[in-house]
Amino acid sequence: MSEDSGELQEHSIVIVGVGLIGGSIAAAVRRRFPRVNVIGVGRNSDRLKAARDACLLTSYTTDVTAELIPSGSFGIVCLPVDQITAAAMSLLESGCSLVTDAGSVKSSVCDALAEHSASGFIGSHPIAGSEHSGFEHADADLFVNRLCVVTPLENSAEQIDRTTRFWKSIGCSVQTMSPSEHDRILALTSHLPHIMASVTASCVSAELLPFAGTGFRDTTRIAAGSASLWASILIDNAPHCIAAIKSAESQLAAFRKALEAEDSAEIEQLWGAASELRKTLK
Amino acid sequence: MSEDSGELQEHSIVIVGVGLIGGSIAAAVRRRFPRVNVIGVGRNSDRLKAARDACLLTSYTTDVTAELIPSGSFGIVCLPVDQITAAAMSLLESGCSLVTDAGSVKSSVCDALAEHSASGFIGSHPIAGSEHSGFEHADADLFVNRLCVVTPLENSAEQIDRTTRFWKSIGCSVQTMSPSEHDRILALTSHLPHIMASVTASCVSAELLPFAGTGFRDTTRIAAGSASLWASILIDNAPHCIAAIKSAESQLAAFRKALEAEDSAEIEQLWGAASELRKTLK
Repeated sequence: MSEDSGELQEHSIVIVGVGLIGGSIAAAVRRRFPRVNVIGVGRNSDRLKAARDACLLTSYTTDVTAELIPSGSFGIVCLPVDQITAAAMSLLESGCSLVTDAGSVKSSVCDALAEHSASGFIGSHPIAGSEHSGFEHADADLFVNRLCVVTPLENSAEQIDRTTRFWKSIGCSVQTMSPSEHDRILALTSHLPHIMASVTASCVSAELLPFAGTGFRDTTRIAAGSASLWASILIDNAPHCIAAIKSAESQLAAFRKALEAEDSAEIEQLWGAASELRKTLK
Repeated sequence: MSEDSGELQEHSIVIVGVGLIGGSIAAAVRRRFPRVNVIGVGRNSDRLKAARDACLLTSYTTDVTAELIPSGSFGIVCLPVDQITAAAMSLLESGCSLVTDAGSVKSSVCDALAEHSASGFIGSHPIAGSEHSGFEHADADLFVNRLCVVTPLENSAEQIDRTTRFWKSIGCSVQTMSPSEHDRILALTSHLPHIMASVTASCVSAELLPFAGTGFRDTTRIAAGSASLWASILIDNAPHCIAAIKSAESQLAAFRKALEAEDSAEIEQLWGAASELRKTLK
């Protein structure tokens, strides 16, 4: 893992899906490397035009065709996980020499593209984001000092290096691992916290919200995310999420049993272990 | 509920426990009503002297005696829940004409003091705080626009009014309800979120923390609180906390079963209901 950033050796970046993540990648490239083409791809040309007018894109298109994509471009698909495979195939067929993505689940996409012999695809997951959506919230520094996990499956060392250089050029540190190892870890560090936030919010009815303090507010903030987006992420990583939920269910039952037994020492022990771990996170 | 603040009609406020909450009450009174005595009570005279030197207190003592407490003072016990009853009794025996507290569980303390015929006690819970502790983090505006729940049990209208006026004078809005109703609600809006934060943190081992994003960070922030403080709060409100945990267990199992069935519509439904509620919280 290194936090060096460097020069970007691409002539053209093609971004499919110019929302918060795609827009922030566009902003990061435009600010740091103004001579690099940043081509936006989406369904809505009014939105793409607005993103170009906001100086996030150098050009845009609603159709991915060989005429519009400079040969040898680096493509990045910033769409919900269930739409990544098709978009990546289409970029590879239209002139991109390497395509990555920014999805938060990796096995399903990497496996599907490997089956299509799409060896020009390599998975990425920059661990950054916010509960906002839309390129209006794009932030050119969203990736600075954030970790990007790159998950090669059947990729060459040159493809891994090229992808790593890209993410470092916009401020990320990079770690490589297998798609399934990524998915196991992220089920615990991201998908489970989202489920727990949602469950915590669901236990409180609207008329009790005036009694919610900053603790409730922070703990449930990420529960406000999009239902369709999160359903697709959780389903896509279902086996690892189920294992993570079982681990939380067992810990929650331990708290309940300690309270039923009024066992203060056990509660201090349960609380203390998590508290020590949390304190190590700056 | 009203957010009007007003003049403070007390000559002396006695605060037992000059930590984050006690220190912030002291700071709030000193800034707004510089002629009012603010007397700090604690075990450690060096810490109390430091709080006086920081202008939070006008005087301090390690012994609660009738000579040191001006007759007719308003007392506030800002100690962990298991230490409130004894401290409140001692303030009432030493000249305070009305005593309240700032504990986050109310039935145990209010019931215990009612049994002692301590009709000069009335429960309060200002819903404000932070994961920090110590008067060094005291904030004179910690209570501004925050809700304080006042939980009278065998109190006169005059005692309720006097307590309400106090909290409003430092910026709170005030709502009154029974101690048990308070405890049922706070189990859901505060104690359960703390348990869920702790459980979420406990599912992640230290070597996975580099893969934690802002979602994990926010969702687990309050898990860093003190183990002994939280064990005493949860044990004190055990029946309501057990009910709240059961409700979370059932919701968590619903998520797991929907994932086992790969039922995307059910996950969207579970997620969507919580998400809509959370979005109503500014």
